[in-house]
Amino acid sequence: MDFSFDARTEELRGRLLAFMDEFVYPAEAVFAEQRASGIDPWSPPPVVQELKAAARERGLWNLFLPGENGAGLTNLQYAPLAEITGHSPHLAPPALNCAAPDTGNMEVLSEFGSDEQRKTWLEPLLAGEIRSAFAMTEPEVASSDAANIETRIERDGDEYVVNGRKWFTSGAMNPNCRIMIVMGKTDPSAERHRQQSMVLVPRDAPGVDVRRGMRVFGYDDGDHGGHAEVVFTDVRVPVANLVGEEGGGFAIAQARLGPGRIHHCMRAIGIAERAVELMCRRAASRVAFGKPIAAQGVVQEWIADSRVEIEQLRLLVLKTAWLMDTVGNRGAHTEIQSIKIATPLAVQRIVDRAIQTHGAAGVSQDTPLAELWAQVRTLRLADGPDEVHKRSLARRELKKYTV
Amino acid sequence: MDFSFDARTEELRGRLLAFMDEFVYPAEAVFAEQRASGIDPWSPPPVVQELKAAARERGLWNLFLPGENGAGLTNLQYAPLAEITGHSPHLAPPALNCAAPDTGNMEVLSEFGSDEQRKTWLEPLLAGEIRSAFAMTEPEVASSDAANIETRIERDGDEYVVNGRKWFTSGAMNPNCRIMIVMGKTDPSAERHRQQSMVLVPRDAPGVDVRRGMRVFGYDDGDHGGHAEVVFTDVRVPVANLVGEEGGGFAIAQARLGPGRIHHCMRAIGIAERAVELMCRRAASRVAFGKPIAAQGVVQEWIADSRVEIEQLRLLVLKTAWLMDTVGNRGAHTEIQSIKIATPLAVQRIVDRAIQTHGAAGVSQDTPLAELWAQVRTLRLADGPDEVHKRSLARRELKKYTV
Amino acid sequence: MDFSFDARTEELRGRLLAFMDEFVYPAEAVFAEQRASGIDPWSPPPVVQELKAAARERGLWNLFLPGENGAGLTNLQYAPLAEITGHSPHLAPPALNCAAPDTGNMEVLSEFGSDEQRKTWLEPLLAGEIRSAFAMTEPEVASSDAANIETRIERDGDEYVVNGRKWFTSGAMNPNCRIMIVMGKTDPSAERHRQQSMVLVPRDAPGVDVRRGMRVFGYDDGDHGGHAEVVFTDVRVPVANLVGEEGGGFAIAQARLGPGRIHHCMRAIGIAERAVELMCRRAASRVAFGKPIAAQGVVQEWIADSRVEIEQLRLLVLKTAWLMDTVGNRGAHTEIQSIKIATPLAVQRIVDRAIQTHGAAGVSQDTPLAELWAQVRTLRLADGPDEVHKRSLARRELKKYTV
Amino acid sequence: MDFSFDARTEELRGRLLAFMDEFVYPAEAVFAEQRASGIDPWSPPPVVQELKAAARERGLWNLFLPGENGAGLTNLQYAPLAEITGHSPHLAPPALNCAAPDTGNMEVLSEFGSDEQRKTWLEPLLAGEIRSAFAMTEPEVASSDAANIETRIERDGDEYVVNGRKWFTSGAMNPNCRIMIVMGKTDPSAERHRQQSMVLVPRDAPGVDVRRGMRVFGYDDGDHGGHAEVVFTDVRVPVANLVGEEGGGFAIAQARLGPGRIHHCMRAIGIAERAVELMCRRAASRVAFGKPIAAQGVVQEWIADSRVEIEQLRLLVLKTAWLMDTVGNRGAHTEIQSIKIATPLAVQRIVDRAIQTHGAAGVSQDTPLAELWAQVRTLRLADGPDEVHKRSLARRELKKYTV
Repeated sequence: MDFSFDARTEELRGRLLAFMDEFVYPAEAVFAEQRASGIDPWSPPPVVQELKAAARERGLWNLFLPGENGAGLTNLQYAPLAEITGHSPHLAPPALNCAAPDTGNMEVLSEFGSDEQRKTWLEPLLAGEIRSAFAMTEPEVASSDAANIETRIERDGDEYVVNGRKWFTSGAMNPNCRIMIVMGKTDPSAERHRQQSMVLVPRDAPGVDVRRGMRVFGYDDGDHGGHAEVVFTDVRVPVANLVGEEGGGFAIAQARLGPGRIHHCMRAIGIAERAVELMCRRAASRVAFGKPIAAQGVVQEWIADSRVEIEQLRLLVLKTAWLMDTVGNRGAHTEIQSIKIATPLAVQRIVDRAIQTHGAAGVSQDTPLAELWAQVRTLRLADGPDEVHKRSLARRELKKYTV
Repeated sequence: MDFSFDARTEELRGRLLAFMDEFVYPAEAVFAEQRASGIDPWSPPPVVQELKAAARERGLWNLFLPGENGAGLTNLQYAPLAEITGHSPHLAPPALNCAAPDTGNMEVLSEFGSDEQRKTWLEPLLAGEIRSAFAMTEPEVASSDAANIETRIERDGDEYVVNGRKWFTSGAMNPNCRIMIVMGKTDPSAERHRQQSMVLVPRDAPGVDVRRGMRVFGYDDGDHGGHAEVVFTDVRVPVANLVGEEGGGFAIAQARLGPGRIHHCMRAIGIAERAVELMCRRAASRVAFGKPIAAQGVVQEWIADSRVEIEQLRLLVLKTAWLMDTVGNRGAHTEIQSIKIATPLAVQRIVDRAIQTHGAAGVSQDTPLAELWAQVRTLRLADGPDEVHKRSLARRELKKYTV
Repeated sequence: MDFSFDARTEELRGRLLAFMDEFVYPAEAVFAEQRASGIDPWSPPPVVQELKAAARERGLWNLFLPGENGAGLTNLQYAPLAEITGHSPHLAPPALNCAAPDTGNMEVLSEFGSDEQRKTWLEPLLAGEIRSAFAMTEPEVASSDAANIETRIERDGDEYVVNGRKWFTSGAMNPNCRIMIVMGKTDPSAERHRQQSMVLVPRDAPGVDVRRGMRVFGYDDGDHGGHAEVVFTDVRVPVANLVGEEGGGFAIAQARLGPGRIHHCMRAIGIAERAVELMCRRAASRVAFGKPIAAQGVVQEWIADSRVEIEQLRLLVLKTAWLMDTVGNRGAHTEIQSIKIATPLAVQRIVDRAIQTHGAAGVSQDTPLAELWAQVRTLRLADGPDEVHKRSLARRELKKYTV
Repeated sequence: MDFSFDARTEELRGRLLAFMDEFVYPAEAVFAEQRASGIDPWSPPPVVQELKAAARERGLWNLFLPGENGAGLTNLQYAPLAEITGHSPHLAPPALNCAAPDTGNMEVLSEFGSDEQRKTWLEPLLAGEIRSAFAMTEPEVASSDAANIETRIERDGDEYVVNGRKWFTSGAMNPNCRIMIVMGKTDPSAERHRQQSMVLVPRDAPGVDVRRGMRVFGYDDGDHGGHAEVVFTDVRVPVANLVGEEGGGFAIAQARLGPGRIHHCMRAIGIAERAVELMCRRAASRVAFGKPIAAQGVVQEWIADSRVEIEQLRLLVLKTAWLMDTVGNRGAHTEIQSIKIATPLAVQRIVDRAIQTHGAAGVSQDTPLAELWAQVRTLRLADGPDEVHKRSLARRELKKYTV
């Protein structure tokens, strides 16, 4: 057992931290201004493009992607880097071409895509030239239960015909989002987990109606392409747009989720670190009733509890990454669920303490805290509410003691 | 001891509930549409004006205001009515001319205002013709400690000269907000609680710069006039604009807070009731893994805990109202602090459960929940963070046992 | 709505508070000594007998019992008195002949007993001459579900034959416990809630084996007769010992529970008040790192939170008592469940804070806190775990919104 | 970074797990019986002696002690073994000669003791022939602040004279406890952390009065020698009994605490694992309302939350052990405080859930849960209440961001 990072990780951490200091943090104010100006409400502000160029130049590019298509890091090596990007979660992940949902989509295309799919879609995604979306969640059903999915993908000759309604299709409001991976049922009569397939649907295909951006606690998340409601009406794509095999949609979705959760959780831990920093700086500088509020016992308790919680979360996420690398996603199933249950809830609490420490400024646009809170809160629902995962985890635990 | 409402309260509750059913709930969709259309982003949508007319006609007007200027209800009589308005907190309070900050301002003018001030400002406010704002919180200092206030109100001949910066001046973005009550220091050398005064400053006075609307978790609360940052630069008002006496600002602020907290808390309880209703309806109708989620034990626990918490909160708020009526605001000091500590935190938790029950819809604009959450969360900071009130309450408790 | 106590309540409160000051608190040290000496481990120490005499003389006797057999108070009148006895819960309730399980048993005999049963058992109980026990919970089954009860009560000629095993039969270790009310099934084939009956079984009847005292977190609660495991083997009692009617056991149990919960909850609130007092006194007098720990913000938060929680709990319990008096136990069903859910959990938390404030002394025998904690913790299980009540309450709440 | 145990740890884990299965678990019922028989209330029941012989034979002996005197394991190697002993915390630690307070005392003697002290006291302790105690906490002062200690150790010629009162001197009620390490002030005028020294005081020295056993929630912990109140009146020991140097007491206490906390925390995690196992077994076998309570969502949530919490705690404790091994106790200061803050609170909660799952049995002597709960609860106070550690940790965190 060894809790130190390996040399490659340390080297990359150093390089990334330097990049954050030199490029990302200074760009935050510019970003806020450009975003507030609202010229192009559903695209990243121009400063992001500059950061991308700088990151790529420094070899801080596609770090999330294992194998030869990406930086070739293990999950354990990438995790601490993802955490660092969480310090500035609106800027650093897109700057490094490591932002969801593109990351998951690139993973899917890299692992399950045909040569043609990879050439057409994966390459420009890897180059950061286009964006993509993942259309899974539906408004009408509890999407945590894949059997509920109502979108139909029906074969008709050499084409698939897609009909259905999706929402919270993140990124799809962005006009530069060119391609969507759409989950739907190709065979509702198959067994529960073989009914679903995934197809690639260009955003500009006839019958695709990107209706509106869903809000998250008042935020539209326009800078990363929003969360679209998309209606598919008789949308036709060639059969070559099938990802993997028919009936393989559920399995691909599962494969996509493991790394996705690690990334989300590590970034969330980075958010928590940022919140603690802001909380400490505020507490040290703000005076009430004759002393800095850092001298208040309750504020000290918030800081201590936050530190202790973060340390535990990080270790669990790192161990999960290590398990994924050593025994595979299936072997790490319990741990992947565990971090999904534990991280957003704890980070939400930590950010809330930082908000409270800031008074009215904490809920406003003058600190990043309120927006970060909304983002982390939403993770408790993303890819299934925590409660679904707890139930599943408990059942496995119970099986240990009962034959 | 008797836990039933008196006849007048029952009669008004009946009338108000009927008004909610007939006018308010049906107007919610209209309101949402008008607001989304964004024609006048800092004013109430037109439907509010219609509701006001209907409410006034039905005698549901200025219920919050005791004495002859208002409906003449006691706090205990008004509290359950305020709760009902919390079921639709964006529509019902303004419809009844019972929306903050006008309510507090009308109370101040009614109790401390000169005849002229009442004629000029109170009358049109009572008639619902204009709106008003209360400029107290400052960005640079911990405003929970009144001694920190930096805004200066200096006498110069027959005028006061106001200089300072305020924010979260709710309502002030609304062009129909005509008057602000501004808190500042007239005598920084006086004893701690006699340094402050309040003056009336017309929103269009030279030197008043309404800079921007502060956001609350992404919401601008434009429909009730937003939360403005306002800079006062050499703003001159006649000495007749002093409210009450010089050095009386702190006392007026305290007098204003008691009823204000009761109103906020009762409306928050109404919000909690609305959240429980939405949670139950959703849980009963949404199916996952083969049964309605209402059959899930964890959801049942949320519902039960919410019910039990609401019942306790309501009783404490009602008792506080009763104490204010029978022994006065000062005698009810501990209870007023108690409801301020207890209510927003509990209601926030209840609304959060309702959000979780709704999945992605819960954080979006398709239910009122996320916006209500943000509103209630902010109450934990409004007029001083909870922690300041806890400390003060604890000290009084400790004194009971130590001489 | 009126939150003041009526004149009779106020008068009795005054008398009881004086009795606590004059007799009960001074007796606590004597009680502890006598108990520690362990001469008669399953009986109240002698000082309790003295207190009983003094209480009876002052008319502080059988206050819990409505109607002509007792003091004739309403639930709402008795509740604040029960709270006061909770300040010294090992001494005051037995001193006033208001200790469980005798209270519930007297209620049952008073309401459902035959003339003969009342003469034989109720009269000496009312006089405080004997003690009684209530044998309901069984070790082998989840007793919160009455359908699970395995004890059999079979009619054989003019007798009932009782067979079964009970535990946590409180009071039954005390040799002066003369009579047990035993719940068992007379007709397992009847409908779910008509299978059970109650019979009176003298503790010295042949076949009654009082096996051992169950511990509660290490405490044997010997001073109030412990919590016995009792085995009934072919125990024969005359048919005249049936309480009420055959098949009426479940209904009697339900009738017994309403007042029982009010009493438990009010005493628990008294315990919480005692804990807050001890916490404040300790915090004010104990010095660490140069100042009294009362100056620590975290301790202040504990005190404030405790005060706010107590005020809410008390009001909910009082309202429940008022409902029981005005609309009956059935009409107060939701509220009775609510106080059962809310009170022990909150009071346990409050006592825990007081323990933490006392350091090592808090967990020891040198303060009453650890023992009070154990007692309150157990209430979360007594007459059904909280979770069962939450589920039932949630279902009623859900029904409001679904047809 | 590598989360697998090394070969030696794996080998020892295997051997220890086999020992638990073969010897310890089967001995639990014997232990309970022997303890209940109460022949020798302040000594371990005879079965412990048998286990000790068996453990020593299998090389499972003094595993806690690094260096040549003990098994020579690192903290990281010992930690997972300590966890396993926590599965049966009354039997396994003494069986392996790894029970507090002997462990800490052996560490102190091993590191700071003179040759003579080691020969006289360390050797028989290592052989498991005698027991020892550590007299630090005092009833009259907040002992978390070392400056408060009132016990005096005064030099008088060739002797030290000890006067003072200690309590919670664990193990000292056991007649086989032969030696106490006593902390007191040799120079109250020295700087804050140089005032204290430690001396060895034989339990049978004249002037040592072992007064009484302190209870912990009703338990006397007699099987491991109780928690004594000890009064020292003019107790004289030769100067050779000084441990380390004069004024070094605080430093020794600090050195003792690091490993002590690791051990306590790892055992507590073992307790949590035991609690989860009991909870699962009970939930799977107990039926209420027609199905096993394992099917209840709330019980499933308890199980899931417990699992997730345990995994995080364990990793944090293991990382702390690794830090102690690699950068020393001082370098691991923050993490040592973190595990002290996090572990007992979380484990207490987990055990509480297991209790609730067991109903009345959970609080009784028929499961180990209630006693384990009491033990873990007490850890929140042992060597300083959590709050003191949180404050200290927060101050270090704040310093990161302020110069």
